[in-house]
Amino acid sequence: MKFELTKEFLEQIKALISRQEETVIFERLKELHPADIADIFENLELEEARYVYSVLDEEIAADAIMELDEEFRENLLKLFSNEEIAEQVNILDTDDAADLLGELSEEDKDEVISKIEDREHASDVEELLKYDEDTAGGLMQTEFIKAKENWPVNRCVIELRRQVEEVEKVYSIYVVDDESNLLGILSLKRLLFASPKTLIKDLYQEKNLKYVKIYDSSEHVASIMDKYDLVSIPVVDRQEKLVGRITIDDVVDVIREEAEKDFQMASGISENVEPSSNVLKSTRSRLPWILIGLAGGVMSSQIIKGYEDQIDVNPALAFFIPLIVATAGNVGVQSSAIVVQGLAAKEFQFNSVLRQIGKESLVGIIVGMICAISIFGFNLAVGGDLNLGLTLGISLFLVVVVAAILGAWIPLALNKLKIDPALATGPFITTANDILGLTIYFLVAYLMYLA
Amino acid sequence: MKFELTKEFLEQIKALISRQEETVIFERLKELHPADIADIFENLELEEARYVYSVLDEEIAADAIMELDEEFRENLLKLFSNEEIAEQVNILDTDDAADLLGELSEEDKDEVISKIEDREHASDVEELLKYDEDTAGGLMQTEFIKAKENWPVNRCVIELRRQVEEVEKVYSIYVVDDESNLLGILSLKRLLFASPKTLIKDLYQEKNLKYVKIYDSSEHVASIMDKYDLVSIPVVDRQEKLVGRITIDDVVDVIREEAEKDFQMASGISENVEPSSNVLKSTRSRLPWILIGLAGGVMSSQIIKGYEDQIDVNPALAFFIPLIVATAGNVGVQSSAIVVQGLAAKEFQFNSVLRQIGKESLVGIIVGMICAISIFGFNLAVGGDLNLGLTLGISLFLVVVVAAILGAWIPLALNKLKIDPALATGPFITTANDILGLTIYFLVAYLMYLA
Repeated sequence: MKFELTKEFLEQIKALISRQEETVIFERLKELHPADIADIFENLELEEARYVYSVLDEEIAADAIMELDEEFRENLLKLFSNEEIAEQVNILDTDDAADLLGELSEEDKDEVISKIEDREHASDVEELLKYDEDTAGGLMQTEFIKAKENWPVNRCVIELRRQVEEVEKVYSIYVVDDESNLLGILSLKRLLFASPKTLIKDLYQEKNLKYVKIYDSSEHVASIMDKYDLVSIPVVDRQEKLVGRITIDDVVDVIREEAEKDFQMASGISENVEPSSNVLKSTRSRLPWILIGLAGGVMSSQIIKGYEDQIDVNPALAFFIPLIVATAGNVGVQSSAIVVQGLAAKEFQFNSVLRQIGKESLVGIIVGMICAISIFGFNLAVGGDLNLGLTLGISLFLVVVVAAILGAWIPLALNKLKIDPALATGPFITTANDILGLTIYFLVAYLMYLA
Repeated sequence: MKFELTKEFLEQIKALISRQEETVIFERLKELHPADIADIFENLELEEARYVYSVLDEEIAADAIMELDEEFRENLLKLFSNEEIAEQVNILDTDDAADLLGELSEEDKDEVISKIEDREHASDVEELLKYDEDTAGGLMQTEFIKAKENWPVNRCVIELRRQVEEVEKVYSIYVVDDESNLLGILSLKRLLFASPKTLIKDLYQEKNLKYVKIYDSSEHVASIMDKYDLVSIPVVDRQEKLVGRITIDDVVDVIREEAEKDFQMASGISENVEPSSNVLKSTRSRLPWILIGLAGGVMSSQIIKGYEDQIDVNPALAFFIPLIVATAGNVGVQSSAIVVQGLAAKEFQFNSVLRQIGKESLVGIIVGMICAISIFGFNLAVGGDLNLGLTLGISLFLVVVVAAILGAWIPLALNKLKIDPALATGPFITTANDILGLTIYFLVAYLMYLA
């Protein structure tokens, strides 16, 4: 009942494939969930996966294809003819079908669409392809269950029985008027326990009806479904007509991808990469921030060069350069991470921006004091000269306070400018703080040794 | 129908509160979703929120309390007597009730439990309190719908009508035998369209039945529900008896919190903080990694000190210290972030660890070459001496390659040791790479200037 992919199982499957034992493979896999079959595919060679695909029940096989990593799916589909892809698209729900088609070249896409058997399905899918994948239109499917407000329960059950055949998962029934305007939602639970003659209009709920518009961003959809704990949400078009629904499983993917994107951005990765991405893509995604960091390093070198005389007089100043820049970077990254998360969770509503910067200043002052005292104490303990200790302590304190404030302020400012604030975390903040930290450090040193 | 919290609305509510206009406030808020009411609460003073709470319908008010930020809720609940909290707990679903009780002191908890009116509810909630909040037991609720396999459909509908009163959201019906052993799942859809005399045992599905055990981790629950696109999952105890269910909304929270935790860890924050956390908590969460970074900085200073003679001979070497350490840090963070994400997504299944390190080496070599050529070119362009250019180029190349490999290897090694690999991102990897980068840099310099 529970399936766990083991090395032994994989080896057995590979052996069966090499011996072309179709029926045995079919028997072995027929009870598995498409997501498990996708796991197996990803651990086979492309040709092997292609063979297993042809052996399976076509509905399960098509679903398994949609559970694959995007890169693996693209490579696997290259082994399929456009006719075969059209057969898959014919089986898939409209949202999955549109996602699959969206990954094909323009040319293949048109050819595949023309070969889809169910023409109504084909035109639904083609319609969905118009929408950007980061919008409600890009997430929705056209399979949903609707009921008219003037139906009685018994007629509704009969009508729904017809509709339900093409809808895999039913969470609720959308109630519409004769013009397809969305009026409210009827839960299956209420329908199940209602008496046969009751009219739908006396049964459905309009209070707290939540829906999204077809051009709303997928982030907006995710935040609404998350906030109101919804498992599905109806989608209306520009004329407020009901056109589709979005289910929570697709939105969970959006939530996870959002979080991954922020994490990658904060780590200085500019393009979505996974461990399975090839070396070229991986390099391309990483080079931009490394080069920006390098440019920052060159700027740092020029700053230090400007204070060369200081270093000549007291070479020990050079020893602590990494300490200053590392601390500036660490403090800045922390501040910006807290603010970026707060922005993502919509925690800054009214006038709390100034309060947040005030709070960061306070945290910066406390952390800065502790750092300053620690480093001053260390210098004293190892018998360093007093001026160096004071220079380190004072500059470290200032660096920490400034880094904390900047770290909080930059993402807030970016957000105001409608730029993704997550851009401010990671290499950007580190590079900015390196330069700033060095400037403060050598300025303090200059003043200290002048005095 | 759609509600958006505005400043004007808030000011009106505040004015109504100050004039104690109970009925007007009730009318204004009665149509709102508990999540929206929670938003309003969080923008009021505690005493104001307390007043609004007392005006609202008690069921909506109790749900709104559960939608609050944990810190705000704790502060608000301090204004309530234990009798009032017991009334809330009485209304809430068992999972929410247990969460709320879990936030109270041991003493208050016992007193509140003793005051809960519905004793069966109280003992269910008390049972749930036994489980760690990071397990299936900590996430589940005891409200669910079950049917016996030997019931016909018409009896089932009657029995379910009774059960359904205390279950807010019904997604599926769990089918059990006489000993409460979970046999399978029946969708409402199938029940709705079945003929009255059909037996449940001929209707339910056992293929691909997914469930979790009460002591499974919440991460495991999230990964199963995510993988198989489930909106609810049954929970069984150690004797495999059905004891509860977990719904997707709670799991979405787990997924988001996991991602936030990784992001915070990667940003050097050691304790869960939010912008609304107080200064003390914020400082405490940030100090550990700053101090570790400081210690790393002190180690760096000792390494540089060991090469003081080099700097005396060629002070320009000191200029590029930030460039070396920043690049080492940036590359290391990138590699570790990709591996940490891959581990979270369970992408390393069989023998792909070595492959990943091999790939990182290759990426490191390409990125390192580009960095080396860039900095060598820059040095040439500004008329720096050739030896310095070679030192920078060679050491930068080596630093990038080593940082890329270490960045990939450390989280994989931590994972093998069952330590959270996310610990390896952020300050840890930066500090380690700073030290390593400096060692390589000055070693190369030593060799270059010796030759």
